[in-house]
Amino acid sequence: MERVWQELIDAGTGGDRRALGRLITRVENREPGWREAMKALYPRSGRARVVGITGAPGAGKSSLASRIAAILLGQGRRVGIVAVDPTSPFSGGALLGDRLRMFDVATAPGIFIRSMATRGTLGGLCQGARDVARILDAAGFDLVLIETVGAGQDEIEVVKAADLVLVVCVPGQGDAVQTLKAGIMEIADLFVVNKADREGADELVADIHSMLALRGERSREAPPVLRTCALSGEGVDLLVAALLERADRARSSGERAGARIREEILTLIEGELARAVRRRFAGGSRLEEAVKSIRDGESDPYSAAQAILETLEPER
Amino acid sequence: MERVWQELIDAGTGGDRRALGRLITRVENREPGWREAMKALYPRSGRARVVGITGAPGAGKSSLASRIAAILLGQGRRVGIVAVDPTSPFSGGALLGDRLRMFDVATAPGIFIRSMATRGTLGGLCQGARDVARILDAAGFDLVLIETVGAGQDEIEVVKAADLVLVVCVPGQGDAVQTLKAGIMEIADLFVVNKADREGADELVADIHSMLALRGERSREAPPVLRTCALSGEGVDLLVAALLERADRARSSGERAGARIREEILTLIEGELARAVRRRFAGGSRLEEAVKSIRDGESDPYSAAQAILETLEPER
Repeated sequence: MERVWQELIDAGTGGDRRALGRLITRVENREPGWREAMKALYPRSGRARVVGITGAPGAGKSSLASRIAAILLGQGRRVGIVAVDPTSPFSGGALLGDRLRMFDVATAPGIFIRSMATRGTLGGLCQGARDVARILDAAGFDLVLIETVGAGQDEIEVVKAADLVLVVCVPGQGDAVQTLKAGIMEIADLFVVNKADREGADELVADIHSMLALRGERSREAPPVLRTCALSGEGVDLLVAALLERADRARSSGERAGARIREEILTLIEGELARAVRRRFAGGSRLEEAVKSIRDGESDPYSAAQAILETLEPER
Repeated sequence: MERVWQELIDAGTGGDRRALGRLITRVENREPGWREAMKALYPRSGRARVVGITGAPGAGKSSLASRIAAILLGQGRRVGIVAVDPTSPFSGGALLGDRLRMFDVATAPGIFIRSMATRGTLGGLCQGARDVARILDAAGFDLVLIETVGAGQDEIEVVKAADLVLVVCVPGQGDAVQTLKAGIMEIADLFVVNKADREGADELVADIHSMLALRGERSREAPPVLRTCALSGEGVDLLVAALLERADRARSSGERAGARIREEILTLIEGELARAVRRRFAGGSRLEEAVKSIRDGESDPYSAAQAILETLEPER
């Protein structure tokens, strides 16, 4: 491994926060040597619990994440927070930072906050979150929270990088079935009704339970539905205990671990192939000739893509 | 080409709406023969103007799209609408359908509405939108509106499939700079301040102009900023005229057309490679062995991905 990578790894996992940030950035950007760096970090990871937090905007995910972080910090644990905002490279992290400052945890030495956006994450958002969680894990953080800004399809993909997925709902956001977007039910390991002091909280809890019953997957235990009030902190202690216990169980579940590794390998391959295609063809004469013949009405993008693919895979 | 494809193409482009819907579905699902079908449709496309509409949720994009559609319909044109909701496979289209029914255009024979979501669009959301627009184009629709539900990164990608991008803003959604997420400024060809009868409309128009001035790209003319009120219909006539005129200009701009073809070829290649990887390795012994050795602590996902990649590309 190149010396600059080795130094960043040593310093970054040794407590140097700036080095840690730079290490993450270089891996996100897929700078030459990133793969060797991740290979070196991999055996040092595997201790941290990785928890994904998702839910509709305004559900109080950031407040809840900072409450959770504060409690864990009080227990002497170190917490990494990955704030993912696929819609903007700027707002997400800043907003979360503000929220955390509110609870006086942002500057604590046991907390490390990292923002992520689609741009600049060349490995894809989900693999990006996996890589960052793994680096923080190797750097000795006990728990990594991956928090999304919204609950879109991108974000559902991102929290799949976690051992455990927490879905946050709030009363008064209309029909619960509407609030819980497609795909969320399938990935939730734990539901939290936040702002549980509000009117409609009981109904929401009941709605979630009946939706879970309706789905009626016999293959796994129904996810529990907890209540919190992130502002006052009520219920967060219980939530943290449930999270830690469930994250341990999820990690030791062999089937799921296998499926996640399988998916990660395929995602890494796809990312590499996509980058290789761009490296090889973008700006090259092969592509420019194809563009010209399409503009001249002699070809079409589908034929051009096929022809280039055939040069890549002669055995097809 | 297989007979079933040929029949769907003939019927679908000949006015049979059910056949058109089925044709689109089969292409979206990348069913065997999809590529030959798109090759056959390609030379019949190229007449329609494709307009992307994006903006924050609640900006009135759907109402505006249906107003635009109603005006074009009144001019004897046929309009295709592609409603994209990356967050849900269900809600987007239904909501848009409701909205259009409000204006009595949904059932008009000159209107065809299609919903799209991330799931079930195996070619990726942006290429999916391109394919649908191209099929509608070949079926004789004069204008295709690609409307997104939100303004996330996914949706910015989607509207890149259009000749022209319309960004809808509304007064009273806070700071205009906040409303216009990163990436939107770069792709907008036309801004619309909708609900322009509301307080704050003048300030919003001014804010957009100063943002555009700040950016100060000399290389291209600043996008115009129009005002509409989708509910009353005010300003929509002018918007339609501007859209038609600008879409023509955008299409005849050679540089941009070249860039779009280039991007489409690369996207098609990436999509094919990703599907090929899944077909070839998912469930296979090569992948299962890799998973096992990672779980046994003898390897890591980065090394496994690299090893599989090397089997794919021997010359690397």
